[in-house]
Amino acid sequence: MAKRSIKSVGLIVKRDRPDAVALARTLCRHLRASKCQPLAEPEIADQIGAHSASRPELAERAELMVVLGGDGTLLGVARMVAAQQTPILGVNLGGLGFLTEVTSDEARAALDRVLAGNFEVDRRITLETEVERCETSARRRERFVAVNDVVLNRGPLGRMLELDVVADHRPFCSYRADGLIVATPTGSTAYALSAGGPIVFPTLDVMVLAPICPHTLSNRPVVLPDSFEIEIRVRAPDHDATFLVDGQESSIVGSEDAIRVRRGRYGVSLVRSSHPYFEIWRDKLRWG
Amino acid sequence: MAKRSIKSVGLIVKRDRPDAVALARTLCRHLRASKCQPLAEPEIADQIGAHSASRPELAERAELMVVLGGDGTLLGVARMVAAQQTPILGVNLGGLGFLTEVTSDEARAALDRVLAGNFEVDRRITLETEVERCETSARRRERFVAVNDVVLNRGPLGRMLELDVVADHRPFCSYRADGLIVATPTGSTAYALSAGGPIVFPTLDVMVLAPICPHTLSNRPVVLPDSFEIEIRVRAPDHDATFLVDGQESSIVGSEDAIRVRRGRYGVSLVRSSHPYFEIWRDKLRWG
Amino acid sequence: MAKRSIKSVGLIVKRDRPDAVALARTLCRHLRASKCQPLAEPEIADQIGAHSASRPELAERAELMVVLGGDGTLLGVARMVAAQQTPILGVNLGGLGFLTEVTSDEARAALDRVLAGNFEVDRRITLETEVERCETSARRRERFVAVNDVVLNRGPLGRMLELDVVADHRPFCSYRADGLIVATPTGSTAYALSAGGPIVFPTLDVMVLAPICPHTLSNRPVVLPDSFEIEIRVRAPDHDATFLVDGQESSIVGSEDAIRVRRGRYGVSLVRSSHPYFEIWRDKLRWG
Amino acid sequence: MAKRSIKSVGLIVKRDRPDAVALARTLCRHLRASKCQPLAEPEIADQIGAHSASRPELAERAELMVVLGGDGTLLGVARMVAAQQTPILGVNLGGLGFLTEVTSDEARAALDRVLAGNFEVDRRITLETEVERCETSARRRERFVAVNDVVLNRGPLGRMLELDVVADHRPFCSYRADGLIVATPTGSTAYALSAGGPIVFPTLDVMVLAPICPHTLSNRPVVLPDSFEIEIRVRAPDHDATFLVDGQESSIVGSEDAIRVRRGRYGVSLVRSSHPYFEIWRDKLRWG
Repeated sequence: MAKRSIKSVGLIVKRDRPDAVALARTLCRHLRASKCQPLAEPEIADQIGAHSASRPELAERAELMVVLGGDGTLLGVARMVAAQQTPILGVNLGGLGFLTEVTSDEARAALDRVLAGNFEVDRRITLETEVERCETSARRRERFVAVNDVVLNRGPLGRMLELDVVADHRPFCSYRADGLIVATPTGSTAYALSAGGPIVFPTLDVMVLAPICPHTLSNRPVVLPDSFEIEIRVRAPDHDATFLVDGQESSIVGSEDAIRVRRGRYGVSLVRSSHPYFEIWRDKLRWG
Repeated sequence: MAKRSIKSVGLIVKRDRPDAVALARTLCRHLRASKCQPLAEPEIADQIGAHSASRPELAERAELMVVLGGDGTLLGVARMVAAQQTPILGVNLGGLGFLTEVTSDEARAALDRVLAGNFEVDRRITLETEVERCETSARRRERFVAVNDVVLNRGPLGRMLELDVVADHRPFCSYRADGLIVATPTGSTAYALSAGGPIVFPTLDVMVLAPICPHTLSNRPVVLPDSFEIEIRVRAPDHDATFLVDGQESSIVGSEDAIRVRRGRYGVSLVRSSHPYFEIWRDKLRWG
Repeated sequence: MAKRSIKSVGLIVKRDRPDAVALARTLCRHLRASKCQPLAEPEIADQIGAHSASRPELAERAELMVVLGGDGTLLGVARMVAAQQTPILGVNLGGLGFLTEVTSDEARAALDRVLAGNFEVDRRITLETEVERCETSARRRERFVAVNDVVLNRGPLGRMLELDVVADHRPFCSYRADGLIVATPTGSTAYALSAGGPIVFPTLDVMVLAPICPHTLSNRPVVLPDSFEIEIRVRAPDHDATFLVDGQESSIVGSEDAIRVRRGRYGVSLVRSSHPYFEIWRDKLRWG
Repeated sequence: MAKRSIKSVGLIVKRDRPDAVALARTLCRHLRASKCQPLAEPEIADQIGAHSASRPELAERAELMVVLGGDGTLLGVARMVAAQQTPILGVNLGGLGFLTEVTSDEARAALDRVLAGNFEVDRRITLETEVERCETSARRRERFVAVNDVVLNRGPLGRMLELDVVADHRPFCSYRADGLIVATPTGSTAYALSAGGPIVFPTLDVMVLAPICPHTLSNRPVVLPDSFEIEIRVRAPDHDATFLVDGQESSIVGSEDAIRVRRGRYGVSLVRSSHPYFEIWRDKLRWG
C-alpha cells in the first residue's frame, strides 16, 4: 500500500487514437480538479490540457505515469522511468493487455484510487544488458534496460547463428538457431511464448532463455534464477546479428562482441488492477 | 558445508544389477574400515556385508543414504527419507542421471568426501499432495510426497479429462486434456519435459503446471510460485482418473474428490557432485 | 456430382438434445413430403416420425445418412456405413464441426440439394487395423475401422510404453512414449493435433504418426504415404497397453500382440458443405 | 532403373575441404579409366584432373552430377540442373546428410553402379516462386526454384510480419509471425522442422506451411496438396520483408508485392543410396 501524496502525473498518450486523446483530456480535467498537475509531451500537452514537459522532465517530475495506449506504449514508458521507480498506471484502449491491465471504463476510478493512496504496486524485474564492442581502437560499451526481453537474432539475409552462452560464469549451451530470447517473467507472455517458452508468473525472480527455431530439437526453453549473468557471444565470424530490446530498440552485434544480461538494478512498478493475472491470461490467451 | 560426523550409512542397491551389488560390497568394506556402519535391507545385507535393517529402520537410523541404481531408485529413497532430511548420495550405474550425479568410478571418492564432512548439499523442493475423497459415509484423506511430479491422468479407456484448477485460491484454468502434471524443478526434466514443459533450474522455488495433450492449443505450460496451493477437481462425472506420484505410487480419483498440491514441508537433500547441472543437461538432453 | 435418386434416408439423432430431436422431426416430415422414406433407430423412430430400423438395417438400406449431433456422433456412423459407402450429411447442433460441416439452419437446404442430386462428396480415407493376438492356444485376429485415428496408449497405472514400429516392412523407430497415434488427415485436427501433429488437408493420401509425450524430444510427428503398412509392437513384457479406435472402441494389447494399420479398403463419403475447409479451420482453431 | 549410358560427369567439390578434393581426384581418375569425361568448374578442374567447364556448361553437358560436400552444396547444384533433370549423386564428407546419402567410403562403388545403369532415382518436388513487384513504373517479376523451402521473414530490425495467405485461390489464413516457411517434403527436415513442422516422407506430393514464431498459438503447421498455389502478401506497409530460397538466394519484398509459390515444373533426381530414409532420420535426428 503506497501512501505518499501525488502532486504531478505524467500522461503518455497514443496520439493517433482519438479515443485515447479524449480520455486523456477527461483525466487531465479531473487531475486539475484534484489539485494535481497533469504533464504531457509538448506535441500533445495543449490538446489535452496538460502542462508541457519533455520526456526527461516527465521522467524526473512525474510521481505517477498514466499510459493510454497498449502494452507496446507502456514498455517504452517503463524503460524511461525505471531508474525513478515511478508507478505506472496502464490503461488499455481495447480489451486488456498483459501490462495495461485497466480498461478505458475503469481508468478514472483507478486513477482516483491511486491519488487516494489506495493501491498496490506490482514490481516486475527488468533486464540490464551491456553490449561490449570489440572494435579496432578501444572497447566501447552500450547499456540497455528491457522490461520484456532481450533478443539476439540473425541478420536479414544471414544464416543460422551459432551462439555460445555462459550462465552464472559456467559454460551453458552452444546454440545453432535463428536467435535467442532472454525474457523476464513479464516478457514470458510476449515474444518468448511464440518461440515455445512457458508462461511465467510475473513476480517470480527468474528469467527465461528461449532459443528461436533451434537446430537441435532438445534445446528447449530454460528457466534460470535471475541472479545469473547470461553472457552471449556470436561465433560465426562473417555475419552480423541483430540485437533487440523489447522489440523497440536495436543494435548490430558482431562476432567479437559480448552481450551480458543481468537482472536490472531497478524494477518496474505497475499499479495493480482489479483483474487477477489468471483472468488476463484466460482472456488474452483465449483459454475460455 | 555439512560437518556432523556420520556413523551409519544406508545403502539401497538395485539388486538385479551385478555391478551394483559388487560396488555395494566394496563400499561396505570401505565404510567398515572407516568405522562407519553400513545398513541395508534384509534381502541384500548379507550379500554385500551390511547390517540388516528394514526400510523404516533405514529411514530412522541412517545419517547418509547411498543409492546405487538410477534416478528411479533414488526417487523412492528420497520420498522415504524426506521427513528425516537425510542427505542422499546417488550413484548412477550407466552414465549420469538427473538425480544420480555420481558415476560408479567416482563413488568411492565421493563417499570419502562426505564422510570427511567435505561436501555441499542441494536442497530440492518436494510436493505434498492431499487427495480428499468424497465418499458415501465420511471424508477420507490420503497424503503423498513427490520429488518429481504429481500427475492426474485419464483412465485407461476413458476420454479426455475436464479439470478445474484453482491456484492460490483463485480460479486458474479449466483444462480439457489427457491429464495434468504438477512438477518440481527437479521433475521438470522428467515427464513434464515430454509434455512440452520448460527445463527449470533445480533450486528455484517454483512449480510447473504442464497439461498433457490439451485440447486448447494455447494451454501452454505455466511456471508458478511454489507458495501457491494448486487444487484440482475432475469435472466429468462418469470416468475415474488416475493419480500418479513420481510415476511410482498411484491411486484412483473420482469426480467429487479434490486434489491439493503444495510445496512439501521437507525437501530432499542431494549430495552435490562435481558435475554442474549444465553439464548434466548437455549430456542427458544431447545438446552436444 | 452424384446423380442416383435417393429413396430412403437414415437419421441418427443425438437423443439427449431436444433441438436435435425437433430438427429430426422437421426433416422427416420434409422427407416424406419428398417421397423419401426416413429411417431411424427403434428408440427414436416414433418420436420423430421415421420408420424403425436397427443399425444393421440402417447401414444396409439407407442411401443417405443424416447425422444430427456432433463430430463424435458422426464418427460412429461413418464406421458403421464405411463398407456401403453411403454418403453422410453431418449437421452440427452448435457452430461447425470438422466433420459435421452443416449448421442446423442450413440442414433443410442441404438435404434438398442432396435429394436433387446436386451435391459433391468428399472421400476421406479410413484406417483398417488388425490386432493379432498371441495367445496360448491359437492366434486370434480382431479388425477395426477408424475414421480419425488409431491410438496405442499406456495402461492406467503403467509406465511409458516401448514401441517398436515397422513402416512399409522396414524398421522405422523405437519409441519410448505414453503412446502413439496413427491418424488419417481427417483425424489430424483431432487428438493428433493435441499431441503436436500438423494439420493435414483432408483429401491427401497420407497418414500421420504422432507419438504422445515421447521421451526423445526429436521424435517429432511424421507424415507417411497411406500406402505404407504400419506395424506396432509393445516391447515391455509386463504391462498391457490400451488400444483405441476413434476414441470410441477399445481393446487391451499385450506384449506379444502385433497391431497392423493400413489404409482402409473403403473410405467415408461426406456430403460437401458450402463451408470451405479453411473456413472451418479458422473457426474451430480460433485463428481469427 | 535408368539405362542411358553416361558419357560426361560433372563434379561439384567443396574446395575448402582437402578430403573432398582428394576424393574428387580419385573419382576423376576412375571416370577417365571408365571412358567417361569428368567436368568441373575452372577454379578446381586442373587440381582434380577434370575438364574445365562453367556452371552453365556443366548444367548443359553433364549427364550425371556428383556432389562432394554437404546438403548445402547439393541444394545449389539441384537448383542449377533442375530444368535438365540431371541425376545427382550426393556424397557427404561427414556422416550422412538428408540429401547427400552416400558416405565417402561408398562413393566409388555408388558411382560404378550409376555408370553401369544399375541405380534408381528419387524424384523430389521443387517449388517455383514468382515474386511480382509492384513498382512505380511497371510490374516486374522474378522467379526462383527451391528444393527445400521458400521463406518469408521479417526484416532485420522489423517487427512481426502480418501475412495474408491465399491457398488454392481461397483465403487461407492471416498470420502475425516472424515469418512463414513453405517447404517441400525434402525441406521438411531442414528449417521447417526447427519451426515445429512435421517430418514428411520425401516422395509425397505435398507441401508444408510452417509459420515462424506465430503470435496465435493455434497457427500450427499445415500440410497441403502440392497442386495448390500459395499466394502471400505482406500487409504492414512500412517494413520490408526478406525472401529466402533454400537459405541461399535472397531478395527484399515490400508490402504491395505478391509472392506466389507453386510446385515446380521440374523435380530433382537424386540417385538413391542403400540407406533407407528411415535410417537417415534415425541417424540425423538422433532417435537412437
